[in-house]
Amino acid sequence: LHPRTKITTESIFSRMSRLALQHGAINLGQGFPSNPPPAFLLEAARKAVGTVDQYTPPFGLPSLREALAEDLGVSPEDIVVTAGATEALSSLADSLYGVGDEVVMLEPYFDAYLPQTLMVGARPVLVPMRLTDRWELDLEALERAITPRSRALLVNSPYNPTGSIFSREELEAIVTLAREHDLWIISDEVYDELYFEAPPTPLRALAPERVFTVGSAGKRLEATGWRIGWIVTPPGLAPAVTGMRQWSSFCSAAPLQAAVAQALPIARAEGFYPQLRESYRQRKDLLAQGLQAMGLEVFEPVGTYFLTARMPGLSAETLVQQARVAIIPGSAFYASSPPPEGLVRFAFCKTPEDIAQALERLERFL
Amino acid sequence: LHPRTKITTESIFSRMSRLALQHGAINLGQGFPSNPPPAFLLEAARKAVGTVDQYTPPFGLPSLREALAEDLGVSPEDIVVTAGATEALSSLADSLYGVGDEVVMLEPYFDAYLPQTLMVGARPVLVPMRLTDRWELDLEALERAITPRSRALLVNSPYNPTGSIFSREELEAIVTLAREHDLWIISDEVYDELYFEAPPTPLRALAPERVFTVGSAGKRLEATGWRIGWIVTPPGLAPAVTGMRQWSSFCSAAPLQAAVAQALPIARAEGFYPQLRESYRQRKDLLAQGLQAMGLEVFEPVGTYFLTARMPGLSAETLVQQARVAIIPGSAFYASSPPPEGLVRFAFCKTPEDIAQALERLERFL
Ligand SMILES: CSCCC(=O)C(=O)O
Ligand SMILES: CSCCC(=O)C(=O)O
Repeated sequence: LHPRTKITTESIFSRMSRLALQHGAINLGQGFPSNPPPAFLLEAARKAVGTVDQYTPPFGLPSLREALAEDLGVSPEDIVVTAGATEALSSLADSLYGVGDEVVMLEPYFDAYLPQTLMVGARPVLVPMRLTDRWELDLEALERAITPRSRALLVNSPYNPTGSIFSREELEAIVTLAREHDLWIISDEVYDELYFEAPPTPLRALAPERVFTVGSAGKRLEATGWRIGWIVTPPGLAPAVTGMRQWSSFCSAAPLQAAVAQALPIARAEGFYPQLRESYRQRKDLLAQGLQAMGLEVFEPVGTYFLTARMPGLSAETLVQQARVAIIPGSAFYASSPPPEGLVRFAFCKTPEDIAQALERLERFL
Repeated sequence: LHPRTKITTESIFSRMSRLALQHGAINLGQGFPSNPPPAFLLEAARKAVGTVDQYTPPFGLPSLREALAEDLGVSPEDIVVTAGATEALSSLADSLYGVGDEVVMLEPYFDAYLPQTLMVGARPVLVPMRLTDRWELDLEALERAITPRSRALLVNSPYNPTGSIFSREELEAIVTLAREHDLWIISDEVYDELYFEAPPTPLRALAPERVFTVGSAGKRLEATGWRIGWIVTPPGLAPAVTGMRQWSSFCSAAPLQAAVAQALPIARAEGFYPQLRESYRQRKDLLAQGLQAMGLEVFEPVGTYFLTARMPGLSAETLVQQARVAIIPGSAFYASSPPPEGLVRFAFCKTPEDIAQALERLERFL
């Protein structure tokens, strides 16, 4: 096999879900919702099956590009539909960099970023976030990490796993850096509708000429297995990105594209996202308060469905086997610097019952 | 953008489908069926939506791996489910070769093979088929094309676009070459159920230790837009291939995986494939006889839903604009040697009415 296959093995998310199943653990590891997708999405899919079943164009079903353009306030010409955000990110790696290039990203990083960068021959350059009593962007470290070989900044806000959201000022500073050094920005905004305070600013609003935004119907509509994601490209670049994307999976699942096209305007009109946020806020509070009551240090998220905390001295393996609660160890998000002492990530996109039971199990175990 | 984006633009299939739409042409270009998928598949999908909606493991939904293993007579451990055959092929490119490597394939070639090989930095080495009154494999030329840099042979049988199927003797000769030179074999068998004479021999039966078989639910079950494909790997290699596949789209569409898992045994039990073959045989005969009646030379296929013929002196552009029939020009399948004079490919996975009308239009135009 090619040495490239050494870059990566089973992802930490697959691994923890597998261990959770094996040990009958409550799975607060991998971020997939316990809620079913909303009824209006399911109904649209049941209708689309049997009517939209053959290849769509690689840039996406025209009705989905239109619906996304309307929802995001961009031109349909600048949208490339992908097989989930994973393929969006890998098609951008294919489109933007290769051997000799560097990609600057923050640490903790979402686990796909590293192998996807390495697989195209480029070098990930990791800039650790500061962790005080909250997660802080270290702008000077970010600037120091940029070299003449840098091609892109890869940022994620709302940020998995930290749950933080960059402020308008931080985003402006990122854009200033990118403009000074002529870098692309890849802005992973898959949790764009999942915030608990002020809504996040879409980065492309500040620098439309250089920002590629990554989005996800799976995250927005609680259907992570449907694999419908998208890229918003700077004007004129969608054809080149589509050129790469077509050779990775040709097009996304046609009937599910049709269903998402139908569902996006309904989700807006019916106030689905505010309801979703409210439901997640309650679950976040339940989890945060439960962990704090056990004396754990919690870094309260303002976005995403993830929460970081410190549980020093315990491995994820011990927890899943003995407490029968699956979490993701902080170390999974670190490669260049040591992870903060005892850092763990909890997913709270699970039922309140499961969260409550996981808390009980942890309390008993601790 | 990275120079890699120069490798490829819009695929010939997307382009001809777009032109067909634009000119009101009958589309005998891109190979997608006019039939809807069978009712048992649609029903299974309508049930799966709302129950199997979150991430599956990257190697595939366990029930689909089981169903495929049963259908193909292999172990579920050796199956990797992919987002269509396109992702199967690109994950194999990621797994098997890179810079400095050569991949030997036949010409005419299916259009994904070239960009997928180039995107990972490897070099495609094309070996032309001989065209007499039929398509013939040139085994000596194949052997001459192998060098110390060769990593894999990529073959396709039933063969798109030629419609030919390699005989048992030809497959044995290919295996002998691969063994002598220690090469992997990628065997694209997406049309495995579409044959009009003897059933094709699965190449892995002859060399299980070195054959990666690529298959497609979209082709078998007339749902090309669902993006459910698979790889059967040599024993023990599925985890490494899954390691690559997980970073291209993480997993295939979950509810559609569940539906295909349900449908595969039903398709066997209800004799769906023999019915499909009979229906395609009739359409093939309609098309072949119609073209022959116009005096055209036809290379009658024994598999796939494609037919090659000679229509010298006419461009695909002229045909789609003026005759309002979309086909694929033979040149789309050639890069290293000149395409046979006047070669065109027709897809006959269309309604008999459309085929008959396309024949009328062609006759009037010629
Ligand atoms: C694609 S598996 C990862 C799911 C997820 O986003 C997470 O758990 O962080
Ligand atoms: C993935 S688009 C190509 C469809 C097809 O197999 C063909 O027309 O040859």
